[in-house]
Amino acid sequence: MLGKCLENVREKTPLVHCITNYVTVNDVANVLLGAGASPIMSDEPEDAKKLAEMSSALYLNIGTLNKRTIEACFFAGEAARSAGVPILLDPVGAGATPLRTDTARKITEKLAPKIIRANISEIKALLFGTDTTRGVDADAADVVNEENLDKMIGVMKSFSEKTGAVIAVTGKIDLVADSEKCYVIRNGSAVMSKITGTGCMLSGLCAAFAAANGENVTEAVAAAVCDMGIAGELGAAALGKGEGNATLRNRIIDAIYNMDSNTLEKGARYEIR
Amino acid sequence: MLGKCLENVREKTPLVHCITNYVTVNDVANVLLGAGASPIMSDEPEDAKKLAEMSSALYLNIGTLNKRTIEACFFAGEAARSAGVPILLDPVGAGATPLRTDTARKITEKLAPKIIRANISEIKALLFGTDTTRGVDADAADVVNEENLDKMIGVMKSFSEKTGAVIAVTGKIDLVADSEKCYVIRNGSAVMSKITGTGCMLSGLCAAFAAANGENVTEAVAAAVCDMGIAGELGAAALGKGEGNATLRNRIIDAIYNMDSNTLEKGARYEIR
Amino acid sequence: MLGKCLENVREKTPLVHCITNYVTVNDVANVLLGAGASPIMSDEPEDAKKLAEMSSALYLNIGTLNKRTIEACFFAGEAARSAGVPILLDPVGAGATPLRTDTARKITEKLAPKIIRANISEIKALLFGTDTTRGVDADAADVVNEENLDKMIGVMKSFSEKTGAVIAVTGKIDLVADSEKCYVIRNGSAVMSKITGTGCMLSGLCAAFAAANGENVTEAVAAAVCDMGIAGELGAAALGKGEGNATLRNRIIDAIYNMDSNTLEKGARYEIR
Repeated sequence: MLGKCLENVREKTPLVHCITNYVTVNDVANVLLGAGASPIMSDEPEDAKKLAEMSSALYLNIGTLNKRTIEACFFAGEAARSAGVPILLDPVGAGATPLRTDTARKITEKLAPKIIRANISEIKALLFGTDTTRGVDADAADVVNEENLDKMIGVMKSFSEKTGAVIAVTGKIDLVADSEKCYVIRNGSAVMSKITGTGCMLSGLCAAFAAANGENVTEAVAAAVCDMGIAGELGAAALGKGEGNATLRNRIIDAIYNMDSNTLEKGARYEIR
Repeated sequence: MLGKCLENVREKTPLVHCITNYVTVNDVANVLLGAGASPIMSDEPEDAKKLAEMSSALYLNIGTLNKRTIEACFFAGEAARSAGVPILLDPVGAGATPLRTDTARKITEKLAPKIIRANISEIKALLFGTDTTRGVDADAADVVNEENLDKMIGVMKSFSEKTGAVIAVTGKIDLVADSEKCYVIRNGSAVMSKITGTGCMLSGLCAAFAAANGENVTEAVAAAVCDMGIAGELGAAALGKGEGNATLRNRIIDAIYNMDSNTLEKGARYEIR
Repeated sequence: MLGKCLENVREKTPLVHCITNYVTVNDVANVLLGAGASPIMSDEPEDAKKLAEMSSALYLNIGTLNKRTIEACFFAGEAARSAGVPILLDPVGAGATPLRTDTARKITEKLAPKIIRANISEIKALLFGTDTTRGVDADAADVVNEENLDKMIGVMKSFSEKTGAVIAVTGKIDLVADSEKCYVIRNGSAVMSKITGTGCMLSGLCAAFAAANGENVTEAVAAAVCDMGIAGELGAAALGKGEGNATLRNRIIDAIYNMDSNTLEKGARYEIR
């Protein structure tokens, strides 16, 4: 029940500690508040470590990584592991530069994130060390589509088995896979790519949903992906004459704020394979 | 006359130097511009020191503190003190981690801020070194309510006497205290807590109002608190179907932009005790 | 044809690497996406260097400079020069502090930016080392107006000749000059100064337009200035009762998102001198 996953976020108000980029951090904070979670941001290693221990989830996003924030990721990540706090990795730009690819791979290996949320080029960089990512966007040649869907589902299940993480790869079709099953999700709107931060916001939601639904992380992440996709559909449908990506951004956050379990259940378009 | 305090901000356009967190910094800048002040942000110690000297106020907010920005706070703070520039401290998350508590207490002791604006858990951490703050939010057990109001007023007056700062503690009921009197303010809306940064924005406003009304800082801070509270009420009242926290954020900044002294005077709900 | 410059941005989707301040970075990203470009932000020197090499343009903005980001500017800048990637400098606050003035002058001398976009006080600081900038705003005494227009056009042409950069100085009247000609542009609205980041956003657009129109950078920068000015006019004209600077910010980004070559051609108000 995806709707129940959202209700649990609203009831438990998970504290989500975010070490994330300064480009989209405000939207991440507001979307977490809108969903019912409680965000806190800190990237000084000592401080981040203390906060990670007491948080419900730790969200690591390398969108504007630097030496201090990388150190903070590992300090906080080790503390989170010891305390049993689930970690989500968003490997922004893995595949675009060596520092991003290496950092994302090291986090995956050493911190054993419970969830990895990325675009397909970033996932390929984690899997194969490839470098097809264009800036922070997936390469056009890297896409999950109806033709390669079966194969991609297999790849994600095996990547999940290898890492122990739930894998969420988002694009035109979204996949949320553990080693045994894969949610194939067809929510969302192409216009969401015209806003910075929809991926970062979604990763924040995935962390919050996972924190509040520890007994079923895969379903929780699928619920977060549907939540964001439905919010994008509502925002895109409401776009009037003269309105554009700034208004869409606000409407998406507003839609997350207003989402209820019934709307989420009815709006979610997915199959489990 | 609270309205006169606002008029002075609009007439004098105080330059407010902000060393603040990267989560809500854009909203702080826009709310300062909306109120008629001129914001500048800088957190490299050398640069921050130079700017502090020439500013009308220095706003220190430790929401995403790191070693460099802590050093910048002290560099800029010493320069501001020497130049007679008033300092405002927003001790975000004091009580949540030792680094935050220690930094906030050292700033209070060494830089003698003219204003401290915080939630009640953060104030308790400054007063007693307690650690009840949950992330950046006040603990539910820490609250100013009608039952403990008399006691809390006394605590704030004595904290003001001890520190020499005007104390603004905000929550359901807001208190603005110096050693002799306390404004008890009942403006605002509970939904403001669903936006990140209402506290940070308010602190920026308090710094601007104090800078433009140096002869009566307590009243100026009370005016800023009422200004933000009324803006929150206007924003909350205007929320239509499907609108949420992102739209509310925009409406609050818009309301600060449109506030005039008459609306502020009429909308302010306070008593002095 | 200014409209053609915009079409080229939308067709080529230039990757714009931004080393920019954390105050307005989200708006810069969204305005670049709205215009059809692809933004990426990175300020860790090693990472910034790698990204600069593969980008279509490098945008350097010193709004919240620190030692690490200054180093990143030079690392990325040298890589961009070697790779033939055009550099845009926005010398935020040059003239306000020595660190800002020095950094902006060194970038101008050592990295040979192809475009410099600034307010008039910042340009004067680059030219003469003066310090009339008030925070991040031009001093009221520094203004391009009808009286000094001829002289200012001459100053900008000669500054362009000296530096090899296209100079865009914006205020009530905007000038875009190379050594031989100067676009005098009269688009925009005074209320744009009540939003943080209109300058930063415009600089991002100038970088994107220059990247997509390498054969005619001066015209491309003029097109970007008109694009932003028209968006500001549309946003200001649409401001309703109770709306203010937060709504205006969203409307400006929306207008950039919706701009087409026809609207840009018809709305542009300029002469070439």
